[in-house]
Amino acid sequence: MKIDGKQYRSIWLAEDTTSIHIFNQEKLPYEFEILTLSTMEQAAEAIVSMKVRGAPLIGCVGAYGMAFAMSLDNSDESIERAYQVLVETRPTAINLKWALDRVCARLRAVSPEQRLAVAYEEANIICDEDAEINHNIGLNGLEIIREIAAKKAPGETVNILTHCNAGWLATVDWGTATAPMYLAHNEGIKIHVWVDETRPRNQGALTSFELGGHGVPHTLIADNAGGHLMQHGEVDLVIVGTDRVTARGDVCNKIGTYLKALAANANQVPFYVALPSPTIDPTVWDGVKEIPIEQRNGREQSHVQGIDANGQRSFVDIAPTGTPCGNYAFDVTPAELVTGLITEKGVCAANNDALKAMFPEIMQG
Amino acid sequence: MKIDGKQYRSIWLAEDTTSIHIFNQEKLPYEFEILTLSTMEQAAEAIVSMKVRGAPLIGCVGAYGMAFAMSLDNSDESIERAYQVLVETRPTAINLKWALDRVCARLRAVSPEQRLAVAYEEANIICDEDAEINHNIGLNGLEIIREIAAKKAPGETVNILTHCNAGWLATVDWGTATAPMYLAHNEGIKIHVWVDETRPRNQGALTSFELGGHGVPHTLIADNAGGHLMQHGEVDLVIVGTDRVTARGDVCNKIGTYLKALAANANQVPFYVALPSPTIDPTVWDGVKEIPIEQRNGREQSHVQGIDANGQRSFVDIAPTGTPCGNYAFDVTPAELVTGLITEKGVCAANNDALKAMFPEIMQG
Repeated sequence: MKIDGKQYRSIWLAEDTTSIHIFNQEKLPYEFEILTLSTMEQAAEAIVSMKVRGAPLIGCVGAYGMAFAMSLDNSDESIERAYQVLVETRPTAINLKWALDRVCARLRAVSPEQRLAVAYEEANIICDEDAEINHNIGLNGLEIIREIAAKKAPGETVNILTHCNAGWLATVDWGTATAPMYLAHNEGIKIHVWVDETRPRNQGALTSFELGGHGVPHTLIADNAGGHLMQHGEVDLVIVGTDRVTARGDVCNKIGTYLKALAANANQVPFYVALPSPTIDPTVWDGVKEIPIEQRNGREQSHVQGIDANGQRSFVDIAPTGTPCGNYAFDVTPAELVTGLITEKGVCAANNDALKAMFPEIMQG
Repeated sequence: MKIDGKQYRSIWLAEDTTSIHIFNQEKLPYEFEILTLSTMEQAAEAIVSMKVRGAPLIGCVGAYGMAFAMSLDNSDESIERAYQVLVETRPTAINLKWALDRVCARLRAVSPEQRLAVAYEEANIICDEDAEINHNIGLNGLEIIREIAAKKAPGETVNILTHCNAGWLATVDWGTATAPMYLAHNEGIKIHVWVDETRPRNQGALTSFELGGHGVPHTLIADNAGGHLMQHGEVDLVIVGTDRVTARGDVCNKIGTYLKALAANANQVPFYVALPSPTIDPTVWDGVKEIPIEQRNGREQSHVQGIDANGQRSFVDIAPTGTPCGNYAFDVTPAELVTGLITEKGVCAANNDALKAMFPEIMQG
């Protein structure tokens, strides 16, 4: 996607064709900094320090980390050593392990001399595949936006509400929930995005940065505003991302998603969830009962980041001294409130039968 | 209510029995400062600069402002002059005009020599009446909390969720939504309050300051969290305040109230609205269609106030450069989602028949 008119991916090969560039996402959206990673240690550090975030992007950085390791030492021992270092940078990131396993399988199958080239090749493929998956999510979601636009007067705006950041900076390109928005905007459909600020971590600021960079009209709003907007016909559809979809179609996503789904349902606003199919977890049925919701540090609730009067990134503490703060990270939206799941294979109803029909290999797995 | 163990009202006569004390609410909840007002000009300035806020409290400050004016000049001209200055400090505040009219009517009916004493007397009565109204709201709401507590195991906590600040600092004492909480806590019912931070202006920080000062257990949460909490049985009832209740029982209140009402309804959590009866507006029927929702400056959305790393009150800008911000101040919760209206006269169902039966004089007016 574009930032200030220039096309980017969130990770790309440098001119030397061996290093990679990433954005320092620790500083986004308040400071824009491009970093260069050239060693396995740098790749590992970028993941640990959250300079990169989002499962797909972390996987890609890990894959290039393997290539960096091969450039210094292409032995079997080097493969195992680099794998161990990289996989431990984010033990909970399934996607990282998946990417590393994939690169290592190819490395072990070839001679040491071939390994450097093979590692880069596989890392490049992983990046391209991720972009392709999200582009396909975008194409499937685009159909929905086109249909809504077709029912409006010519030139009338399609208003889309989104929550959190399911954007391209967490993937290689396009994002999940944002992919249909970018494609609609690119083909000239007049859209406008209501961006929930998404307290407590304000990922809406990142979504605003992304949409603004690409030129997509948008408005940053308090998470409280969506119900009022839907009540007054100011929202044509909702598109959000998800961390996990259960076998019956329940959707686990950033805290507050459920409230928007309730409002959408009460006001007949279509509520869509965009996801790559590996997000479907066939081992969980009832999301509300079965998915444990992480409680994070209350400091994320009390301390708000932004730019201070001196133009510096800094935090203010909004909680009066001694105020206990709660911080629930996710919630679960029951399948009944979900209009459809926008995947790379197509738009699927949020129920077990539809998921089985579209994803037999996942649902039997 | 108490602050650090000491009992206060939000406005009280100083030891000299002519000046009044108020809290500087511009600085709350981050700085605690007691101000002294002794002149009509000081009273007017306190209202204009928002050192006092909340309709009842503003009315009381206005009333004492009339008394201050009488202490210097008890002529007919002085009454009119002071009235004009004070009423223009907040032209939209019906309660201010009502309090000033009430004091002036009494002043005009007595001789100049009696006016100083009469002005103080009437201002004191207005304050006491407001405290009494809210205390009665509290007693009526207390019954609801007692019933819920009675259904629980002994010693089990009653969890109450509230939105915005309908607390004692906006009234003379007790507050509206908070009055039942204080009374329940005072009589030893174990309660805990989930306090919505209430973006964009974070009035939840003020509610936290109040509850914390009085020793009521509470947790400050993102506005996004309430749906999840209700889904998991962590909320026994919701009590909020309101700016206006329509003839059919629709409730206009701070933006985001509607989302909590939807979640309460979906999860069979009782949703109560606490209000003094003058908040009922018999001239409006359908709140969603008829009540215009104020859009305030986007800067309230982008700029968040708190305490910075140097311990100073300051703001950070959370919106990336150039991000348009929306700021809808209120929303309307349809009567169907409201379990009951807690008023000084009793708990009333949120519908026209019940309102007519309990408030015939208002509903015919």
